Amino acid sequence: MVMVTVKQAEEIILAQRRDYGTEQLHFENAIGRVLAENITADRDLPPYNRVTMDGIAIQFKAYQEGRRVFRIAGTQAAGEKPVELNDAADCVEIMTGAALPATTDTVVRYEDLILADGFATITTETVTKNQSIHFKGKDKHLHDVVVEANQLITPAVIQMAAAVGKNFLQVKKLPKVVVISSGDELVEVNETPTPYQVRKSNNYTIKASLQQYGIDAVMLHIPDDATITAQVIADSLLQYDVIILSGGVSEGKFDYIPKALSACGVDKLFHKVQQRPGKPFWFGTHSKGVLVFAFPGNPVSTFMCLHRYFVLWLQHNLLIAKPAMYARLDTEFTFKPALQYFLQVHLRLDEQGILLATPVEGNGSGDFANLISTDAFMELPLEQDKFTKGTTYRIWPFALAGKW
Amino acid sequence: MVMVTVKQAEEIILAQRRDYGTEQLHFENAIGRVLAENITADRDLPPYNRVTMDGIAIQFKAYQEGRRVFRIAGTQAAGEKPVELNDAADCVEIMTGAALPATTDTVVRYEDLILADGFATITTETVTKNQSIHFKGKDKHLHDVVVEANQLITPAVIQMAAAVGKNFLQVKKLPKVVVISSGDELVEVNETPTPYQVRKSNNYTIKASLQQYGIDAVMLHIPDDATITAQVIADSLLQYDVIILSGGVSEGKFDYIPKALSACGVDKLFHKVQQRPGKPFWFGTHSKGVLVFAFPGNPVSTFMCLHRYFVLWLQHNLLIAKPAMYARLDTEFTFKPALQYFLQVHLRLDEQGILLATPVEGNGSGDFANLISTDAFMELPLEQDKFTKGTTYRIWPFALAGKW
Repeated sequence: MVMVTVKQAEEIILAQRRDYGTEQLHFENAIGRVLAENITADRDLPPYNRVTMDGIAIQFKAYQEGRRVFRIAGTQAAGEKPVELNDAADCVEIMTGAALPATTDTVVRYEDLILADGFATITTETVTKNQSIHFKGKDKHLHDVVVEANQLITPAVIQMAAAVGKNFLQVKKLPKVVVISSGDELVEVNETPTPYQVRKSNNYTIKASLQQYGIDAVMLHIPDDATITAQVIADSLLQYDVIILSGGVSEGKFDYIPKALSACGVDKLFHKVQQRPGKPFWFGTHSKGVLVFAFPGNPVSTFMCLHRYFVLWLQHNLLIAKPAMYARLDTEFTFKPALQYFLQVHLRLDEQGILLATPVEGNGSGDFANLISTDAFMELPLEQDKFTKGTTYRIWPFALAGKW
Repeated sequence: MVMVTVKQAEEIILAQRRDYGTEQLHFENAIGRVLAENITADRDLPPYNRVTMDGIAIQFKAYQEGRRVFRIAGTQAAGEKPVELNDAADCVEIMTGAALPATTDTVVRYEDLILADGFATITTETVTKNQSIHFKGKDKHLHDVVVEANQLITPAVIQMAAAVGKNFLQVKKLPKVVVISSGDELVEVNETPTPYQVRKSNNYTIKASLQQYGIDAVMLHIPDDATITAQVIADSLLQYDVIILSGGVSEGKFDYIPKALSACGVDKLFHKVQQRPGKPFWFGTHSKGVLVFAFPGNPVSTFMCLHRYFVLWLQHNLLIAKPAMYARLDTEFTFKPALQYFLQVHLRLDEQGILLATPVEGNGSGDFANLISTDAFMELPLEQDKFTKGTTYRIWPFALAGKW
């Protein structure tokens, strides 16, 4: 089978939209999820003519006609019923957040007043009508949409949900994901490997990365055994929406996974992408809708494929895909093979507001020590093999890379 | 008391470093926390000469001397003890991830082989010595520091912790934070406010924002009552490391909080900052070490002060402060008052890698409807009142703003 290009792989994966339905969450637990409904205003915002400075409320006409001294007819805190005036020579001492009395139209702040013996004297000549009032409905009207569906629930969305009394939010369900590691060379983290073994680590990285998107993935491990592999895959196809496999998709005799996937009725949509790292990436779907992302086993390949393909698919599926991001390569770089290269880069925003990408020197795709100082992968065009300093290329930043 | 500038406020706050100690977490639960120890390699990385392609392992000297056909003496998967050769005319069929046999030095991939009847024939003339091997210790050596202390624990750090068998990580403890809302105008989210009341919302926003940093804040509410206010503050000073207050710090008669703080022994370090929004911001410390951030009650002021001051302090305190970030103002903007203005902006990275900031039109600091489309605040210099398109200013992005 012919290798697909990165662009083809992306198109094949993004064509696999799935609807996992919605669920209701208390608004306090919905942070980081995606809203599945519009939030509307249950009344105007602000709900009343809201005083924005501590001071006095007056009728502007009286001030305009020359009055500077006002009798304090009453005091009104935020949350209290408005104190109405019977006389234009009076004022209400009033606090920030209070509802402006209907018999007043202008607020003069303390800084422009002298208060003494129950009277307020205005000491400025620059009072304007309607000043220091945030008028009812200025921001939003009753029934207006205040937060649209298909929006990531940020702290600002939480604020709005609370303000309009939306205790429960309808959010999109996330796919149920299983992360399956494979290979007899892998031992547990608390075990001491023989000189020919290594500890499991990719599965933890995938799980930690998915946590950033609210997905609590299940982890499984399969040994290099064709029968067990087929059984675990068959079970997983029944229980999960997405299977992410790490390792076991290269050409070797012991790579049972593509065969097991095929035997379980998973249709291969591609195997091998014209890229480095991550060339042996295998992707398929099952007739029941399950998606299978089988990433190559080395840590950098897995990490790159996860961000470039799975996260992109997830964002598109949730309708929260972000615009493409670009950065300027900060140094010259050469890559000759006829593969699209994903360069590990460190990002830096300079004082000119320009995003600069500096390659993190690595020892090939097996070297994950450098991932720690990597903020993003830079996707270098296939057509070129020399990449000049100052040229702009697309980047794929990580969710929690320390800087972003 | 004279207002402080933004710079002075920042300096006063950042001078208040606190050490909350460390705690041990299972590495899987440490994501997003800050590492308090170096992680070192428990052996070389890679731990053995690691085969990076499926194929055969040979002695290069035999190839160099003209041999192209090798007898397959054995097969070795990843995780298996190396199969050693007795004869340079032999080879080992070997899989990615396996430990290279000591009697071989070069790997030839399947793509360059024909396998038949127990023999492998090399079909390429471009084999080079040591190819397709990731040598032992190439990335890191035994006892090398693989992750330094004072680093945010990202998925890449999780990977490394797993790889070196570091089951438990020493991380920095986070401050115990209480968020106190105040004001009789506030009702619960599930209540219907009178026409003069609003629902609590700032406290939820603060709590949700702090969650992004791993802090699980406690929420309290105090009514407009001097005695209760003093009691709640006194209790909180005993139980928490940081008190964040929202509301109750302007000049009004009903703003008991600064008085209560003073009565409880909290020393005011400043009250009022030369900025908009958030001018009435009050900051103080208690002799027992507790920090008190008392933010003005309006939502945008609270949100801005939280990011500009509290989050900055937290990052400095944890030694994970990020470099300053800058963006280009995408349109002309005018702001005349002698206050440092924090402009709500939407960020966009263009195809030239330039970060552009477009103001989100708002109706003043009380208007929080626009916070939803705001990615950052742009800090406009105090000395100017006209800000030209294309000029670069510092920005303060939010942790989870949908784009970043």
